[in-house]
Amino acid sequence: MLHPWYITGITDGEGCFSVSFTKRSKITVGIETRPSFSISLTRRDLELVKQIQSFFKCGAIRFSRSDRVYKFETRSISEIVNKVIPHFEKYPLHGDKKKDFEAFREICNLIYRNLHLNREYLAVIIERAYQMNPSGKRKYSREELLRMLDEVKR
Amino acid sequence: MLHPWYITGITDGEGCFSVSFTKRSKITVGIETRPSFSISLTRRDLELVKQIQSFFKCGAIRFSRSDRVYKFETRSISEIVNKVIPHFEKYPLHGDKKKDFEAFREICNLIYRNLHLNREYLAVIIERAYQMNPSGKRKYSREELLRMLDEVKR
Repeated sequence: MLHPWYITGITDGEGCFSVSFTKRSKITVGIETRPSFSISLTRRDLELVKQIQSFFKCGAIRFSRSDRVYKFETRSISEIVNKVIPHFEKYPLHGDKKKDFEAFREICNLIYRNLHLNREYLAVIIERAYQMNPSGKRKYSREELLRMLDEVKR
Repeated sequence: MLHPWYITGITDGEGCFSVSFTKRSKITVGIETRPSFSISLTRRDLELVKQIQSFFKCGAIRFSRSDRVYKFETRSISEIVNKVIPHFEKYPLHGDKKKDFEAFREICNLIYRNLHLNREYLAVIIERAYQMNPSGKRKYSREELLRMLDEVKR
């Protein structure tokens, strides 16, 4: 069994907290909010990825062909709020990724209360999410998303 | 202060155990053996790299322009044998990098006894080193090094 501090250490290296957005006409606010916590390791570390999954007792493992890594990931808001976030509250990150986690936690707590389905809160969530992972790729710019949200309002 | 298991976790992600070789006519065996333990983190994590250095109480930090990372590194054989190796014996790696560490430990224990200056042992060291870090770049192939060593013999 992996030590909880080991999990935090490897997460500071290879973990990713992210919140992405997708256009969805069926949702009243027009935008789906998708949180994700993942840890990606090289293909030689599948066994370790399985141990990480056993540690969190949630999530799934998949092979990403584009990055050639095995990725442990959970996108379930209840798993994130009840299993992932409590771990990093008890065994905090030490790297700059801690800032991503703080934003992620705030956003996930709002999603858990279904506030991402409320236009005003969603605007707040979008702003906060775009302060995360500055190096990551985004389908939409922050401005595009806020414009979409504004169009739905009218 | 970082927890020892945190150190092992981030090393499984971002650490590197390596042994490199350089042609040196001034050395009797003609080849210099250089061990290195390093942990490289993105430029936003300089503070964490400093904490890692404080943990090991050895090594140096430098910025690698090519990889755009801060690297904590020690190349000192006494620091490696007395500080780095004992840590990973007590708090073992869980990933496939554990195999690199095992080879690294064997090689460093030979270097510590100055056996890398002996032709027969150096041949063994070269063989073992070339089983490590299969994805890493090498200045010389295993065959070139063994040929160099053979030429020195005659």
